Amino acid sequence: MPSEVIDYSVLSPVGSLDILSINEINQLSGLNKGKLYEMFRRCSLAVMNSGIDNDDIEQLENQYLDFEISIVPQARGACIAVQNAPARAFVDGKMIQGVKENLFSVLRDIIHLSSQLDLDLLHEEGNGPLITEAVFHTLRQANALQARVDPNIIVCWGGHSISEHEYDYTKEVGYQLGLRGFDICTGCGPGAMKGPMKGANVAHVKQRIRNPRYIGLTEPGIIAAESPNPIVNELIILPDIEKRLEAFVRLGHGIVVFPGGAGTAEEILYLLGVLMGNKHGAEIPVYFTAPKESEAYFRQIDEFIGDTLGPEAQKLYEIIIDDPEKVAVELKARMTEVKEHRKARKDAYYFNWMLDIAAVFQEPFIPTHASMSELNLNTGQEPHMLASQLRRAMSGIVAGNVKEQGIAEIHKHGPFKLHGETNLMKKLDTLLTSFVQQKRMKLPGSKYVPCYQVVTD
Amino acid sequence: MPSEVIDYSVLSPVGSLDILSINEINQLSGLNKGKLYEMFRRCSLAVMNSGIDNDDIEQLENQYLDFEISIVPQARGACIAVQNAPARAFVDGKMIQGVKENLFSVLRDIIHLSSQLDLDLLHEEGNGPLITEAVFHTLRQANALQARVDPNIIVCWGGHSISEHEYDYTKEVGYQLGLRGFDICTGCGPGAMKGPMKGANVAHVKQRIRNPRYIGLTEPGIIAAESPNPIVNELIILPDIEKRLEAFVRLGHGIVVFPGGAGTAEEILYLLGVLMGNKHGAEIPVYFTAPKESEAYFRQIDEFIGDTLGPEAQKLYEIIIDDPEKVAVELKARMTEVKEHRKARKDAYYFNWMLDIAAVFQEPFIPTHASMSELNLNTGQEPHMLASQLRRAMSGIVAGNVKEQGIAEIHKHGPFKLHGETNLMKKLDTLLTSFVQQKRMKLPGSKYVPCYQVVTD
Amino acid sequence: MPSEVIDYSVLSPVGSLDILSINEINQLSGLNKGKLYEMFRRCSLAVMNSGIDNDDIEQLENQYLDFEISIVPQARGACIAVQNAPARAFVDGKMIQGVKENLFSVLRDIIHLSSQLDLDLLHEEGNGPLITEAVFHTLRQANALQARVDPNIIVCWGGHSISEHEYDYTKEVGYQLGLRGFDICTGCGPGAMKGPMKGANVAHVKQRIRNPRYIGLTEPGIIAAESPNPIVNELIILPDIEKRLEAFVRLGHGIVVFPGGAGTAEEILYLLGVLMGNKHGAEIPVYFTAPKESEAYFRQIDEFIGDTLGPEAQKLYEIIIDDPEKVAVELKARMTEVKEHRKARKDAYYFNWMLDIAAVFQEPFIPTHASMSELNLNTGQEPHMLASQLRRAMSGIVAGNVKEQGIAEIHKHGPFKLHGETNLMKKLDTLLTSFVQQKRMKLPGSKYVPCYQVVTD
Amino acid sequence: MPSEVIDYSVLSPVGSLDILSINEINQLSGLNKGKLYEMFRRCSLAVMNSGIDNDDIEQLENQYLDFEISIVPQARGACIAVQNAPARAFVDGKMIQGVKENLFSVLRDIIHLSSQLDLDLLHEEGNGPLITEAVFHTLRQANALQARVDPNIIVCWGGHSISEHEYDYTKEVGYQLGLRGFDICTGCGPGAMKGPMKGANVAHVKQRIRNPRYIGLTEPGIIAAESPNPIVNELIILPDIEKRLEAFVRLGHGIVVFPGGAGTAEEILYLLGVLMGNKHGAEIPVYFTAPKESEAYFRQIDEFIGDTLGPEAQKLYEIIIDDPEKVAVELKARMTEVKEHRKARKDAYYFNWMLDIAAVFQEPFIPTHASMSELNLNTGQEPHMLASQLRRAMSGIVAGNVKEQGIAEIHKHGPFKLHGETNLMKKLDTLLTSFVQQKRMKLPGSKYVPCYQVVTD
Repeated sequence: MPSEVIDYSVLSPVGSLDILSINEINQLSGLNKGKLYEMFRRCSLAVMNSGIDNDDIEQLENQYLDFEISIVPQARGACIAVQNAPARAFVDGKMIQGVKENLFSVLRDIIHLSSQLDLDLLHEEGNGPLITEAVFHTLRQANALQARVDPNIIVCWGGHSISEHEYDYTKEVGYQLGLRGFDICTGCGPGAMKGPMKGANVAHVKQRIRNPRYIGLTEPGIIAAESPNPIVNELIILPDIEKRLEAFVRLGHGIVVFPGGAGTAEEILYLLGVLMGNKHGAEIPVYFTAPKESEAYFRQIDEFIGDTLGPEAQKLYEIIIDDPEKVAVELKARMTEVKEHRKARKDAYYFNWMLDIAAVFQEPFIPTHASMSELNLNTGQEPHMLASQLRRAMSGIVAGNVKEQGIAEIHKHGPFKLHGETNLMKKLDTLLTSFVQQKRMKLPGSKYVPCYQVVTD
Repeated sequence: MPSEVIDYSVLSPVGSLDILSINEINQLSGLNKGKLYEMFRRCSLAVMNSGIDNDDIEQLENQYLDFEISIVPQARGACIAVQNAPARAFVDGKMIQGVKENLFSVLRDIIHLSSQLDLDLLHEEGNGPLITEAVFHTLRQANALQARVDPNIIVCWGGHSISEHEYDYTKEVGYQLGLRGFDICTGCGPGAMKGPMKGANVAHVKQRIRNPRYIGLTEPGIIAAESPNPIVNELIILPDIEKRLEAFVRLGHGIVVFPGGAGTAEEILYLLGVLMGNKHGAEIPVYFTAPKESEAYFRQIDEFIGDTLGPEAQKLYEIIIDDPEKVAVELKARMTEVKEHRKARKDAYYFNWMLDIAAVFQEPFIPTHASMSELNLNTGQEPHMLASQLRRAMSGIVAGNVKEQGIAEIHKHGPFKLHGETNLMKKLDTLLTSFVQQKRMKLPGSKYVPCYQVVTD
Repeated sequence: MPSEVIDYSVLSPVGSLDILSINEINQLSGLNKGKLYEMFRRCSLAVMNSGIDNDDIEQLENQYLDFEISIVPQARGACIAVQNAPARAFVDGKMIQGVKENLFSVLRDIIHLSSQLDLDLLHEEGNGPLITEAVFHTLRQANALQARVDPNIIVCWGGHSISEHEYDYTKEVGYQLGLRGFDICTGCGPGAMKGPMKGANVAHVKQRIRNPRYIGLTEPGIIAAESPNPIVNELIILPDIEKRLEAFVRLGHGIVVFPGGAGTAEEILYLLGVLMGNKHGAEIPVYFTAPKESEAYFRQIDEFIGDTLGPEAQKLYEIIIDDPEKVAVELKARMTEVKEHRKARKDAYYFNWMLDIAAVFQEPFIPTHASMSELNLNTGQEPHMLASQLRRAMSGIVAGNVKEQGIAEIHKHGPFKLHGETNLMKKLDTLLTSFVQQKRMKLPGSKYVPCYQVVTD
Repeated sequence: MPSEVIDYSVLSPVGSLDILSINEINQLSGLNKGKLYEMFRRCSLAVMNSGIDNDDIEQLENQYLDFEISIVPQARGACIAVQNAPARAFVDGKMIQGVKENLFSVLRDIIHLSSQLDLDLLHEEGNGPLITEAVFHTLRQANALQARVDPNIIVCWGGHSISEHEYDYTKEVGYQLGLRGFDICTGCGPGAMKGPMKGANVAHVKQRIRNPRYIGLTEPGIIAAESPNPIVNELIILPDIEKRLEAFVRLGHGIVVFPGGAGTAEEILYLLGVLMGNKHGAEIPVYFTAPKESEAYFRQIDEFIGDTLGPEAQKLYEIIIDDPEKVAVELKARMTEVKEHRKARKDAYYFNWMLDIAAVFQEPFIPTHASMSELNLNTGQEPHMLASQLRRAMSGIVAGNVKEQGIAEIHKHGPFKLHGETNLMKKLDTLLTSFVQQKRMKLPGSKYVPCYQVVTD
């Protein structure tokens, strides 16, 4: 059954993005429907489905097969025209302003992708500094880097599919953060990516904070499954998951992790791997936090980290159970140190240049049956290297769960196979199985069929 | 048990209010603790208890007997100092910005009351035009009158003590209003005065409305029992209930009524009485709305109106059950008519000068056992005159329920006695009894003892 | 020959002034052309002649006998309609925005005069505190009092009729003040009241100061002869010359005096008289400055002050010849002391409450042949009292020169007669005669006939 | 004698430019003093000499041989440090804000030049569309392209060395343009490039235009000789003269030409050449205007155009003598047509995409003795081609007069030699000789030695 749809033309909102060159417009014009246009179309559709809780992208795509989008040059500025667009993006036939702004953010980032970066180059190995420059340029282009502002961006990670009491808890943490003036940055989407923003918004209203920031960092592969929630007022599309992760850790000043599934595990492993690589300390406060009922979740994660990456990794975060105010108060206190640390190293507050990120965390990992089976999942390597391999394993599982490309691979060849040291693999299996049992892999509504298989040697 | 308290000094937020004359500061200085200072102290305490759901003002007062407030002249602007203030108004020892702003709104209105108006004069009879000027000046002083803005303020009335599904419904209506860009004006306080603002706020965020207005109109007698909810960003204290009611109908462009108790009934009777007095129409769209479960409530109200004020009164509003979107869509459509009506009469959009309000609705009614028993509750008079008498009856009951002065009267002399025509009195009794049974008179937590007695002749 | 005229209606510019009550509109409506309307009409005409160099008000009035002005209530805000208005206030038939804004400033102050102050009361003796409150309220109403801003308003006094090299010098001083971020406050009008603003404007552009203030303080009696120059962006009409002088000294943080005639002498005598009355110091930096060619002017003034008010008075100012940069650099340096002084006394930066102004300087002086001849022009009194008498003498001469009422008196009864001690009178006569010879009494174009006569006993 | 100099560090003003990547900072760091650094240093020095009237760049350079500039990364944003900088850029040791902002504009454009454009590519032939894109990107980067604004940018051309009455006339025209709300765009520098901005500024103050635009378009070769006057609040450095000329005609909505020398002649020839190439009309209103005393100047130009490019070229402009108001009124009227023309062709108001500019006008012309002598100065070609050749001749003469590279060439090899048809060469010689005689070639102060020689075959 086709969903209700609407045709519409919308002038760009005030901002510098509305000034497009003829070249840029041609690149995205519907006429030559290339790869870039497809990416633009898919991301735009996700934005127009903003707020929907549905990570079954195939089903979503099928609902809007006739959706089309084009850019129309106008004497007074750029104009985006949509056809057969989701009706939920409109009120009384007028596009919701937040949707409109995010649509033009998509346009900005896709154009930026196309004109400013040589994508293939960036995908090659050994391009560390270039990749960091690319992340920097994408964020700057989006006006996400603000000079003369003290550190106050808290990155919140956690699952898109979480229980109601966990969701309420993320709201409460967001509220306490908002009361202290923090801005929130998440990965877009529902669950733990939406709750902190909602909570912070209530507090920001009380504190009369006129320009609160709700930054959503996403990438073309995930945006469809985790459409930006309606509060996101700075939507930024990074080229791939690795740059998105780098954007999180260079843009944020503190990190809060809520319970989640494979994606959250990927984020944790990335973060710990990167931090372990910074021998002289990175001064990024990290808190794992959950309501009382979910305490066991982080105990299990903590144990897994201790077992695999060792006690040094465990020192890099603190676990706070059932105390939203404490999370916020501690982060507030830690901001002074963050500031001093940056100042001492003459680093910017708005972009953590000094953080070392090893190549293995920057290079794009394309999960295929081959690349997944080749992961080095053994303890006989430096902890941060093991973290990088485990991170990739999790990344592949996320792809198999909700990304178009990954799902297609699974359809064709069956589940990914993960090989490695028996003991390690058992722990991994236990962890993943618990994610499945706790329904953290996919939004409820269907039975979850694992896209992976842990093979013990 | 004393509540947690805090001492604090706060510079006025940016705005014109921070410039006080020596005279103005002296008037409110704690040294000569006159009536004005008491009013300032009481209103300030209510603001600092913002968001609390407690209409038992005696209990609230007792918690903060040591609360003190004073104005300290400073080279760089006015400064308010509080001692033993409720800790809930602070985060990590810093006053919440919204509380701070509302505190200075109190200061502004109390000073305005004292210096600009001759209160006693206004309380005399036969001062219609003067009273309207006074309402106008109070609103202008508060920057609540905005030229060059199309009609878009929706007044939402309803009970402070409502059921959870009713509360959720007021939020949903607020959300639909907010999506259409409406600003919200209520009487401050919890329940139906808070829900529409909360709902609208979510929608305003989606619509990226940068300066949404959440106007709270209150008066010194009621503010303690119905402390401003934290979303209110324009707090205005009118001198008394009659001016507050006049402010509602001259400032608002449309009115939504949710279920409520005696206060809501007072508002309905005032509104219908005033509208019936405008023979040539007043073009104020009025909607009574409730969720499915509360449909009976408005059927009963409607019947009472039909029985007492007649079918002409019933034509002045529309009842919409369980359809928040319809309420908002209809109001949006009606705004065009409101605009045309004002234009045609060369009336301002920001203040409904042309609305006739009979003296009997403007003159302050002080509920005492004498004045309550003298009310003319008989059908042998013009419907709008009967409305005025019934309005006063309801006003007295509200005072007896939650206002300091009223409660004191009841303590001393027992319940107010209402006399009148048997048939009418029976209907009134039925209505009031249902309010009691539905727990609409007082917030839950204690058994409600009626402050009135309906006496049939 | 009638000048070119235009009919026009103009909506109020954005601001709070556009919200008028029905009462306020009625007061100024053209229908009941009372005294207030006449004042409004005359001030408005002056504003519309903004920038014209003509102090012959009779001639000016005759050119625009048919000029009319009225307020038209409009649904979307107040509207001022003019008929037969000076064409110079328009470009291609559209009113110049600066004229428009100043027109609404006139409206604001006239309404303020009428509704907020009891004029007669203020004109009575013994009302010191009340008069200060009135000055304060007028300035606050005009948003001229800005909290949270460091002292930076320089008052510039000097003649409306000065030589070209003196005019260029005032521009250069204004330029140096502007480079250092100072705002300028003068008495409106041409000559030394315009030059500093013009110079400062060039510097403000270079310094990218977005909201420079060019404050013009005037009063109904003088505005016609000294119409606001076009740069004035804060026009404020005080009720009379005494309140205007008080506004200067309470609003400004430093004072620069350029050469001038009787008006400038009045200002100097007022200032010195007031400062001498502040035994504990007032921390108001005062500089008399002139180009090389006009050095003799200030030497003569200085001598006159020494002879009449004594050496204590001479310590209250510094004379700087031909060094605009030094004037600005010294004022900048002195601002630190001004700030400390205010801070130490807990006085506001935006209004010098602590400055003592004796009643004799606050009470309105109406120059008539009787009051002028009764002035106590003898040395046998305290210097600040003698200053007050000399100030009144000068005030009378200004009135006789350019104010409507004063000119009428002179027409009827001949020149004012000034009596006093022979020696003092000779010095006074010498000073005044030099003003006449230097053409400082009236703008060039006609032969100046003195409106006064110095009578030595 | 060394000039007074100052060392200083300045944080970037608020704006997006202050966010630099490590890469960008490295490129401009003083350590590797490459060509780009030299360009940055030279342009910065010009900005710091803002307002100076001196086109002898050699002398200017020699005064500040020790001037150095570097970029210092700071935690809170980028910082520029200067050593031995011209004292005139400072007030009391603090850098003038306008200088500061223009300094960061230089930084922006130099970085843009280096990172965004492949300079060599653009300098190759046959890159028309690429060149237009480059101009577009430079202007967009500088926020000079504003959507949703009606056409209102007037380009003013004319000599840097003009007589006083001509200068006053340019001010008066600027004043009349400013009164009508026009923004002004010139080539930076003194004379006819400064006067219109000064005049417009006075009018903009009167009209309370809060964000007037004074756009200065320059290029690295000319900026030293024609340092930006202090009013320029949008300084943009295009890569070369051809892109600068293209920026003028695509950004402006109307063009006013005042008397000038070779540079002005270059601009006129470029403009007419381009317009003649647009067969279907380009709707760019062009006015040549001068005071009465300079009427002969434009008669001579007009005659030269008639003789060389023919009567069609003469139809492309209108000559208005001694009537500043008429110039402004006509331009105002013509803006409606400009708007309609753009609308009809769906072209942007902020950038004239549809204007055809032939390759011969876009390709960079490097004046050398060889390239100058090879110019095809004969009538046997299409008028717009002849215009292109004459334009290049004038361009070479400007280079020889005031550009570093050109002057060096002349020093080495003597004057450029221009060959061509006898009749044409005579007319050219007459024109150039009159420029010399009228002192339009160089600022007064030294005897002008021609850098060219007209050789008749």
